[in-house]
Amino acid sequence: MKVNGTHHRSIQRSGAAVQVVDQRSLPHVFRMQTLSSVGEVADAIRDMTVRGAPLIGVAAAYGMALAMQVQADDGDVSRAASLLVSTRPTAINLRWAVEAIQRQLLRMPAPLRPAASWQLADELAESDVLTNQRIGAWGAGLLRQRWLELGQPARLEVLTHCNAGWLGCVDWGTALAAIYQAHDSGVPVHVWVDETRPRNQGALTCWELARHGVPATLVADNAGGLLMQQGRVHACMVGADRVTTQGDVCNKVGTYLKALAARAHGIPFYVALPLSTVDWTIQRGEEIDIEYRAADEVTHVSGRNAAGHIERVQLAPDGTLAENPAFDITPAACVSALVTELGVIEASERGLASLQQYRKAA
Amino acid sequence: MKVNGTHHRSIQRSGAAVQVVDQRSLPHVFRMQTLSSVGEVADAIRDMTVRGAPLIGVAAAYGMALAMQVQADDGDVSRAASLLVSTRPTAINLRWAVEAIQRQLLRMPAPLRPAASWQLADELAESDVLTNQRIGAWGAGLLRQRWLELGQPARLEVLTHCNAGWLGCVDWGTALAAIYQAHDSGVPVHVWVDETRPRNQGALTCWELARHGVPATLVADNAGGLLMQQGRVHACMVGADRVTTQGDVCNKVGTYLKALAARAHGIPFYVALPLSTVDWTIQRGEEIDIEYRAADEVTHVSGRNAAGHIERVQLAPDGTLAENPAFDITPAACVSALVTELGVIEASERGLASLQQYRKAA
Repeated sequence: MKVNGTHHRSIQRSGAAVQVVDQRSLPHVFRMQTLSSVGEVADAIRDMTVRGAPLIGVAAAYGMALAMQVQADDGDVSRAASLLVSTRPTAINLRWAVEAIQRQLLRMPAPLRPAASWQLADELAESDVLTNQRIGAWGAGLLRQRWLELGQPARLEVLTHCNAGWLGCVDWGTALAAIYQAHDSGVPVHVWVDETRPRNQGALTCWELARHGVPATLVADNAGGLLMQQGRVHACMVGADRVTTQGDVCNKVGTYLKALAARAHGIPFYVALPLSTVDWTIQRGEEIDIEYRAADEVTHVSGRNAAGHIERVQLAPDGTLAENPAFDITPAACVSALVTELGVIEASERGLASLQQYRKAA
Repeated sequence: MKVNGTHHRSIQRSGAAVQVVDQRSLPHVFRMQTLSSVGEVADAIRDMTVRGAPLIGVAAAYGMALAMQVQADDGDVSRAASLLVSTRPTAINLRWAVEAIQRQLLRMPAPLRPAASWQLADELAESDVLTNQRIGAWGAGLLRQRWLELGQPARLEVLTHCNAGWLGCVDWGTALAAIYQAHDSGVPVHVWVDETRPRNQGALTCWELARHGVPATLVADNAGGLLMQQGRVHACMVGADRVTTQGDVCNKVGTYLKALAARAHGIPFYVALPLSTVDWTIQRGEEIDIEYRAADEVTHVSGRNAAGHIERVQLAPDGTLAENPAFDITPAACVSALVTELGVIEASERGLASLQQYRKAA
């Protein structure tokens, strides 16, 4: 992704440290932050300096590498892995990445681990880029097909929730990769961007889409139902934090409400995800551990004041209790298709099983 | 409603002017604002210093009275009515109140109008209080019935959207009147309060409920679907800005998404409204004119900063386009019952027709 004419990734190795885009200062300030230890990586994942299911997986892999530079005994591998996995419970990519690295490191002698862990993390980052490019190609195909079905309207109206863009991955994104590639190939996509309270990741999506030149309009999370009633949404395209073996989708809270509305209006609801987002150990969405975040993410918000400074303001009256679940479950029945790096599949036991066969063959 | 031990109404006559609760400074500062002319009333309705379907009807009636104190010819009556009706297009109570006052004023000689218009507005305000008290009694009955059906759980969990409380009426509220009366009669109500972006009227609801001692928890608009999935919502209770003759409900944007989710989970979805909210000229919700408000209500937000001052901050990146529809339509099929001052009816042609018969008999 280009920002101010320079190609950037959301995360990149820089000598003995890792640089990440600081997503907490966006959309107002674009800056990189340096993470030099596994503790700093864990903090950055927890406080959402880095966020997005694929990206936190890659960040955690680099966290493992940073830990190995200090101490690389078996106990160090396990401690680093535990610390990283504990940061956020819902997105499965994080656990998947850490466990993959851990498994490989424990198979080799400790002295090889410092160098090998960098290599494994770098490989994961590269693989994420390729994966998302492929997801984008499949997803763009779906969007083009929808555009043709509708008789090539002047705008193909796509609604998205949260940020499943390059900021949440290493590059490209998942849902937004499809939108970028559709746009680049001449489909006149216009994106309705859900604000995505309480953390307003919609602002990140608006920022990304503007950098790429994709027309977009920000709306309150409440507006999507009306837009669908008015016939102004042709497709929904979102990411995922975890998908079960029967195709239930755990994604940013609010996704389910849009999926229900899309189903009520016969609008395709697509979920884009890398294979690493599938939890092969869980069948039903209800089994997923939903993360609850701090109440003050609901009662307070940060933005840029008139003087240009980032300021935090309180929205709710003093003493207000708030609850802040970060995810919800969209049952497979509400999902029109899953878009993966291996192709487009049905959100069902059968669809996922076909994916697992490909995965084993690969 | 008591605030700091004193009984308040959202609007009250004060000599040759009208005092209203300034809802833009809430929930942080509670203060009254004086409106001394029809122009000031129109501005206060437009900028939402006064808001809520019933309240803006009463405010407009006082606006007519203020206009009549200056000039009371037929042309003055019509000009004041046009100005007031133009302020907000969707809530039907506003038009209903202004047209009722206009009709009565035009039937009398101009010299009688200044005094008569005060009396008409006062009567409307008194009638609003009585109406809402009755809505509350019927609605509380529904909530109690639900609580008994469920085997008297320790908490009856009621979700509400926006503010349909005493701040949006003269006193009591509509949806919240039901909650207040249920609470007062010993039903252990706990309220999930939707934040209600973009204007965060959920903060007003939290403020009101806290004043009355009703337990409540603020949630992002996105959270309701998950709460319903978890079985943590027993009923929804909302207000309405306009209801059609077949029972379609126009209410604050986002209501429809919650109604769809409630239907998917078999949760009763109640809409509380005074008879004056019914538009007898419109059958289908799609025919209602939806108000669009300024984009900066989405891209910016006001709150209290650390120094205790109200500050406006920008949430979206520079140059972001936003669309800001204020209402959506919940089709009658998603509404379990309409709660009116005359009783609880089915949201259907038949239900509304029975209401019209009562109305004509009354």
